[in-house]
Amino acid sequence: MDQILGAQSIQFEHPPYFAGDASIVGEKEGQGPYRKCFDKVEKDPYFGTDSWEEAESQLQLQTAALALHKANISSGEIRYIFAGDLLGQNIATSFGLVDLNRPLFGLFGACSTIGESLSLGAMTIAGGFAKKVLCLTSSHFGSAEKQFRFPLEYGNQRPLSATWTVTGSGAFILSGESPSPWDNVCITAITTGRITDYGVSDSMNMGAAMAPAACDTIFQHLQDFSRMPEDYDRIITGDLGSIGRDILLKLLMDKGYDISKQHMDCGIEIFDPDTQDTHAGGSGCGCSAAMLSAHILKQVRAGVWKRVLLVPTGALLSTVSFNEGQTVPGIAHGVVIEHV
Amino acid sequence: MDQILGAQSIQFEHPPYFAGDASIVGEKEGQGPYRKCFDKVEKDPYFGTDSWEEAESQLQLQTAALALHKANISSGEIRYIFAGDLLGQNIATSFGLVDLNRPLFGLFGACSTIGESLSLGAMTIAGGFAKKVLCLTSSHFGSAEKQFRFPLEYGNQRPLSATWTVTGSGAFILSGESPSPWDNVCITAITTGRITDYGVSDSMNMGAAMAPAACDTIFQHLQDFSRMPEDYDRIITGDLGSIGRDILLKLLMDKGYDISKQHMDCGIEIFDPDTQDTHAGGSGCGCSAAMLSAHILKQVRAGVWKRVLLVPTGALLSTVSFNEGQTVPGIAHGVVIEHV
Repeated sequence: MDQILGAQSIQFEHPPYFAGDASIVGEKEGQGPYRKCFDKVEKDPYFGTDSWEEAESQLQLQTAALALHKANISSGEIRYIFAGDLLGQNIATSFGLVDLNRPLFGLFGACSTIGESLSLGAMTIAGGFAKKVLCLTSSHFGSAEKQFRFPLEYGNQRPLSATWTVTGSGAFILSGESPSPWDNVCITAITTGRITDYGVSDSMNMGAAMAPAACDTIFQHLQDFSRMPEDYDRIITGDLGSIGRDILLKLLMDKGYDISKQHMDCGIEIFDPDTQDTHAGGSGCGCSAAMLSAHILKQVRAGVWKRVLLVPTGALLSTVSFNEGQTVPGIAHGVVIEHV
Repeated sequence: MDQILGAQSIQFEHPPYFAGDASIVGEKEGQGPYRKCFDKVEKDPYFGTDSWEEAESQLQLQTAALALHKANISSGEIRYIFAGDLLGQNIATSFGLVDLNRPLFGLFGACSTIGESLSLGAMTIAGGFAKKVLCLTSSHFGSAEKQFRFPLEYGNQRPLSATWTVTGSGAFILSGESPSPWDNVCITAITTGRITDYGVSDSMNMGAAMAPAACDTIFQHLQDFSRMPEDYDRIITGDLGSIGRDILLKLLMDKGYDISKQHMDCGIEIFDPDTQDTHAGGSGCGCSAAMLSAHILKQVRAGVWKRVLLVPTGALLSTVSFNEGQTVPGIAHGVVIEHV
């Protein structure tokens, strides 16, 4: 039996396997420290289309197709897709995935969406409702700036607390069966996040808005499993950036947990702070998704890391709520990835 | 064992029960044919707040609280919330449900969202991952007009094919245990929809955009279960309206199924065409959700209907995609509701 643990967690008795994955990123991401890890670096920011939104749809579709191709799985074998993006009414997903012609659960968790997607996908497999599902998310610098900030042509100055939306997508096939005897990387547990609102109202400092949500989920996870940070090789947040990281470490220290040795943040990792000026780091649904495929799964697969807690983090804001003076609540969904 | 059936369906061996539900609507809905069926009619369109978005958040929160109250369940007993709305980045949900302080899966399926929410909630209960979950959605005429059309003050003329976004919310508690021996209304099966794009590009004719999606899901459902329309007392779509209904009946007739005797559409039902001029009918995430609580569940509970196929329908458009000349794809998620 799968176990319902503590307040917010599930431990899977038969953990779903990663049966395939892929990452595609834009040119800037392809010049960063992980340039050799992504499956494809696309130099055309429009991905051959006429708009940023269509570009993101293409990015998501190409990444899904590549994951299927790498895993030698036809789209017809996918029972459900769990997908989402940052844009209003999920249009990158809707227009990107129509041609896959598979049953779709559209999700919105801001930049935490890949955590939400993998959690629901893992429950679906573990519950016996599907043999294979596809989990994916995307973000695009151009479409996100247009949606949330200013037109690129305006040349707006960005404050130092701002993050840079990653042009990237990560796609993952989860399966109830091991893809091969020597490749048993699984989702062994999940901890689903609650909305956390500390009253941050600066949309240019999303790390500060999301750090309390990451703290809440990581704290609850450690409590639910009666574990310590040392029980993990890495505790990896999505896109807190450098300012959010400092807040997270302090908040968790106040609650009795020092995760400074285990903590890593995809937003801090994906760009080189010395040669790529992104201020506080990278962000977006595609940031943690692309890093999961390009780097994290490879480290677990190779046995470098035995157990990882991935906690993609989302800032739940829109231009409408922001312009009406609302705060920026956060949410974070934890996924435990292990080589079994 | 739960059964994976055909291309897109699941039949639950232990069907999750409806353990509580509530509906709250606005004044116009409260003047319609179902005026006496809703739990509450709120005459203040702002729900005591300063903006349409906050009003919708309040509507969603109040409906959730009322469902919990009616079922005599504390929010702490809810393991997961599955919720969404029509607004960009799901802000009605994010700001509405933060105070419930429960793990949240944010969803986007446009007006099909209550079908998506109930499907995922039912899988979560049936899979043994929770004892109780809360499924809810909302829409608000003011916030939707502002998001998708024109400011209300502009007094835009609406074409006859347009629907009227329902100010309403429906909230449902699903449970693995029967709430009482004489009240066993369950979700016995689901059929999850695919994105369907027939190339409709008129955002003022969403019934036409959604009808092919409803057809696809209903057809697939009947195929997956080897059933005929006569096996249902009602086949109820979400918000096709009068124009969408005609298209759906014709499309299904072309595929060999005549559902004209069983078909009912929440969007057609919720307003009185003679005394309430809404043109093609009602629409919005809250339309089918409120009608499910106010009318459909009551009919099943009373034994008037033994088996109902509810198919909330969503039009996957945003102002951005519409302004870029994109089509309006649709999606529809089927849920079978029975008295067992």
